[in-house]
Amino acid sequence: MLAPIAFHRSIRRFENRAIPAHVMETVLAAAVRASTVGTMQLYSIVVSQSKDMLAKLAPLHFNQPAAATAPAIVTFCVDVARFSQWCRARNAEPSYNNFAWFINGSIDALLASQNFALEAENQSLGICYLGTTLYTAREICELLELPQGVVPITAIAIGYPDENPPLTPRLPLSGVVHYEKYKPYSETDINQIYNDTEASELTKTLVKDNKTENLAQIFTHKRYVKSDNEKYSKLFFELLIEQKLLSL
Amino acid sequence: MLAPIAFHRSIRRFENRAIPAHVMETVLAAAVRASTVGTMQLYSIVVSQSKDMLAKLAPLHFNQPAAATAPAIVTFCVDVARFSQWCRARNAEPSYNNFAWFINGSIDALLASQNFALEAENQSLGICYLGTTLYTAREICELLELPQGVVPITAIAIGYPDENPPLTPRLPLSGVVHYEKYKPYSETDINQIYNDTEASELTKTLVKDNKTENLAQIFTHKRYVKSDNEKYSKLFFELLIEQKLLSL
Repeated sequence: MLAPIAFHRSIRRFENRAIPAHVMETVLAAAVRASTVGTMQLYSIVVSQSKDMLAKLAPLHFNQPAAATAPAIVTFCVDVARFSQWCRARNAEPSYNNFAWFINGSIDALLASQNFALEAENQSLGICYLGTTLYTAREICELLELPQGVVPITAIAIGYPDENPPLTPRLPLSGVVHYEKYKPYSETDINQIYNDTEASELTKTLVKDNKTENLAQIFTHKRYVKSDNEKYSKLFFELLIEQKLLSL
Repeated sequence: MLAPIAFHRSIRRFENRAIPAHVMETVLAAAVRASTVGTMQLYSIVVSQSKDMLAKLAPLHFNQPAAATAPAIVTFCVDVARFSQWCRARNAEPSYNNFAWFINGSIDALLASQNFALEAENQSLGICYLGTTLYTAREICELLELPQGVVPITAIAIGYPDENPPLTPRLPLSGVVHYEKYKPYSETDINQIYNDTEASELTKTLVKDNKTENLAQIFTHKRYVKSDNEKYSKLFFELLIEQKLLSL
């Protein structure tokens, strides 16, 4: 039975149980069926399941519970290298080492990753996206031995769920969907869109524990602060240049 | 009944039939259930369905059949503006106008877009991603009146299918999946990975029609040529700076 798309919950604690190879292949086969620019499949998928690799990957994902307990971490990489290598072997000079194709490769890789995530849930597996991929992309490149033309864009921790969390909140649809054109948000709109989130018991507890005035300050002062945002921007941009994905 | 993820085919010709509002809302509701960095939902979704807007959008997608015949074009935008506006209204200074958060917003927007695509297929609709979004992003910004902090990253043409195309080819799984670490491709690997595609009747016809030596040259000499790749890279990069998504 297929899992309804709207019932996705991220899973951060997994059973100590390997994923059978044929199940992993079914999930991977669904991943590559995603739409891809010009049928070029500008991505590579690195499946890490050995104890050794998982032990080295977990710290690169800040040892967050999902990364620390998953029997597999699957890294989705932009890859213009394979396609370019094919071109060169066919007397066709490629020019896909620039910003437009980094974006095209990112789109390809991320559509494949979401197919992977949803098919995993269809197979009774649970997943958690690891946003930390962006922050330690250089170290991940080194560990996974990614060549020039290849860079990680996201990763997914995957395994059999050992928890059953509730759905996490989302803004009301009217807060993110616009009809015909983008409608600027008034102050009243913003208050309404964020009202449920701000009024929740979870938010009240978080604000108290973090000693901030409100939820927004937890984001700006604690979770995603200016110095980190700027540092990671610079690091990732420099990595793209080094990996020959932004050649001019 | 849910559609199997691995059976996706892009649809490029649609019936002349509107999508009922409640069906569109079901699809949008699935879109926003995708994983999102810090539950921040760093995207906006612009649904264009009016004859006027569709007539203006189609040329921005090079009048490709999917864009020209769809009853709706849905544009997925990175949006750090709404979240930042909320922060500012809460005495919390945001710093999400940089490269790392453009990437985080792109991930958010693209996971939502793929949920949208798959739920559309569950609702008996067909979809086609419009890669042209990247090339005319500036004009799309102007038409949809996207403010600073917002930029389109992809778009989907959606409607009831008026064709039933076969699955398009994909490289063998072994050509894109690596276990534990990235395994460099040998010349033999490349030949094997691309063998089925190159040997197909479709490829033979394409090569003949395009008067090239082989399939790779169709990509490098005809479809995605150096001057365009470099032009679109520059245009999109400059747009990100103007839209205050790469502020330094």
